[in-house]
Amino acid sequence: MAIVVQKYGGTSVGSIERIKNVAKRVIKARTSGKEVVVVVSAMAGETDRLIGLIKEITDDPPPREYDMVVSAGEQVSAGLLAITLCNMGCRAKALLAYQIPIITDSRHTSARIERINTESILKELEKGYVVVIAGFQGVDRAGNITTLGRGGSDTSAVALASALGAELCEIYTDVDGIYTTDPSIYEKARKLKKISYDEMLEMASLGAKVLQTRSVEFAKKYNVRLLVRSSFRDVEGTLVCKEDEEMEKVVVSGVTYNKDEAKISVVRVPDKPGIAARIFRPLTEEGINVDMIVQNISHDGFTDLTFTVSEKDFKRAFELVKRVAQEIGAKDVEGDTSIAKVSIVGAGMRSHAGVASRMFETLAKEGINIQMISTSEIKISCVVDVKYTELAVRVLHDAFGLEEEEVKEEK
Amino acid sequence: MAIVVQKYGGTSVGSIERIKNVAKRVIKARTSGKEVVVVVSAMAGETDRLIGLIKEITDDPPPREYDMVVSAGEQVSAGLLAITLCNMGCRAKALLAYQIPIITDSRHTSARIERINTESILKELEKGYVVVIAGFQGVDRAGNITTLGRGGSDTSAVALASALGAELCEIYTDVDGIYTTDPSIYEKARKLKKISYDEMLEMASLGAKVLQTRSVEFAKKYNVRLLVRSSFRDVEGTLVCKEDEEMEKVVVSGVTYNKDEAKISVVRVPDKPGIAARIFRPLTEEGINVDMIVQNISHDGFTDLTFTVSEKDFKRAFELVKRVAQEIGAKDVEGDTSIAKVSIVGAGMRSHAGVASRMFETLAKEGINIQMISTSEIKISCVVDVKYTELAVRVLHDAFGLEEEEVKEEK
Repeated sequence: MAIVVQKYGGTSVGSIERIKNVAKRVIKARTSGKEVVVVVSAMAGETDRLIGLIKEITDDPPPREYDMVVSAGEQVSAGLLAITLCNMGCRAKALLAYQIPIITDSRHTSARIERINTESILKELEKGYVVVIAGFQGVDRAGNITTLGRGGSDTSAVALASALGAELCEIYTDVDGIYTTDPSIYEKARKLKKISYDEMLEMASLGAKVLQTRSVEFAKKYNVRLLVRSSFRDVEGTLVCKEDEEMEKVVVSGVTYNKDEAKISVVRVPDKPGIAARIFRPLTEEGINVDMIVQNISHDGFTDLTFTVSEKDFKRAFELVKRVAQEIGAKDVEGDTSIAKVSIVGAGMRSHAGVASRMFETLAKEGINIQMISTSEIKISCVVDVKYTELAVRVLHDAFGLEEEEVKEEK
Repeated sequence: MAIVVQKYGGTSVGSIERIKNVAKRVIKARTSGKEVVVVVSAMAGETDRLIGLIKEITDDPPPREYDMVVSAGEQVSAGLLAITLCNMGCRAKALLAYQIPIITDSRHTSARIERINTESILKELEKGYVVVIAGFQGVDRAGNITTLGRGGSDTSAVALASALGAELCEIYTDVDGIYTTDPSIYEKARKLKKISYDEMLEMASLGAKVLQTRSVEFAKKYNVRLLVRSSFRDVEGTLVCKEDEEMEKVVVSGVTYNKDEAKISVVRVPDKPGIAARIFRPLTEEGINVDMIVQNISHDGFTDLTFTVSEKDFKRAFELVKRVAQEIGAKDVEGDTSIAKVSIVGAGMRSHAGVASRMFETLAKEGINIQMISTSEIKISCVVDVKYTELAVRVLHDAFGLEEEEVKEEK
């Protein structure tokens, strides 16, 4: 029998009423003849409650005990769902990571899955049970509870789907799929039927918060078909899968934006080897992630270096860079937090020319100045003044015809 | 180094503030040169919250999953205490039942401890850690989480103290020891310095709610010295230990009462063999515990049979007994819920004559009618009208001189 893995997020199991709805979906899949493995997150708010208790004690807890505390939320929701299923007449068994086991390394709070013993799961499936698994958690070889990082239940689900050879990994969440852009910004946003792993990865890293980036990487690596769909409404979702011919015909699949970035420019840096390293090393050491980096060509031995960091790191980054700038003889350091990054993503860019220029022209026509540009194989990002974010998203969505059901091929 | 086991109940770890106080006590014991093993209950209210979630689904949950859900509370409090200790500079490690393991049978929701692997605990103690253990939980041989029944953390602590050969098992709770009677009923109640296991068992089963009966049985069986004391106030507690000479001199150690009982009388039953069994079998089958049973001598082939059950079972028991009474030709069944059981407990009863008659005379002098009497080696219980409960407790407390520091020997 075909195995399907269903993952339900925190809002989907946020109350007993909602857990009952989840149980109905599970039973529907079961009675349609599938073997069902369910992965659950903690009830909405529960992980935050547990983290809040820890924060009342310290901001620097021992990571082993931190994991022990925060993993309790998934233990409860897994047990509750199994109880609900049994109560509805569907045989179900809840399993924790150590009972399977889902073996991870010992990097507490952000552990990586190393091995899943599927035998224990298959045994229960054979007996006719629905298996409900606590997401987010693992166990290291010494038997300590580990966790996979925030949103780790997605990764649990994908890893289990891969290990079990499931035909599909359904991710049930509070949105009903992946949209061409944020529907709250543009009402013409359209739900995608299909999207490639790479596009999804770009979308996720650019601010679309539906799936955890790591789970998509995992799905891509092991070729797990992901179906993102709503646990509240019975509508078709979005399939995340391998790129196919059809996708290549689509130039742009989505427009994303991110307002949580800030820009730092180091002005008139002496253009010598090792300068970039001097600037970025202290940031790395402080755990500050740099996103876009742009360095212009050199004039008379001087150059300008501009980069973006997330807004929450801006203050610390700015102070660090000011110190280094002095040491390396740069003229000045400028910062700007009122920026946004607007991006277009599409696997079709690889085979279609003129996408970048169409993006730039579209923004120019509206008088939106582009402050920075960065590109990858399948995305183009522009930094603009934050006040133009919504306008930029809308005009780009129109320019690439994303509202239409069948997107036209570039002529 | 000597090992001490400290157990903290739900109110003692009811908030982060209180957990910090617990940590201070633990550190005090540690710095006084003891190896400390701490057993914790769930934060006050947490187990009830989890049971409440289950009850929203069903009153008849699968016991395995029930245990998985309700055991999460102790996992959280154990982790939080270890985090607090580390934050205060005391190396600490939290352990769950499966990590030790504490092996139990598979009787979910009321499992019995079969074996504790002390090696894992001793290893951490040797490394200089304080070991914090989640109470109430165990794991069966198949790796399923079990729980030891309500109040099971006491049993966890005693079993661990026994297995580790601890010199003392300290039970920290919200009262500061065992009293001669309930201080809220009689202000002359005096805290006992010492009490024997048997006396404590009688007191517990008679309604003193400080210690779980099973944990006392366990302590008696393995000769674990229990010290009951307050986690809020730094005062001497009560030692529960083997009976010694000093105790034997004391005639009565305490007066207890229980208002949660109800009386059922089967009137004019034909006195034939097998009648009692006919009456009590259906009660047993329905899980109704019978406490006192009194059968008077027979007159002309008929007898009266009276017994007590807990008030919550009264209605069901009454219906069952009425049905049986008809079948066996009893004249009538009478019920009464407005009764109370008042008892005196004392190891000295064994060697002192006249205790019972002094009890009966004391009650008679106040015009309190005794409806039923039942005795054991070290206790005498009388059922009286519930309205006399407080009066009976006070006059008996006085009659046996319990308010005095050194109780006089019977003359």
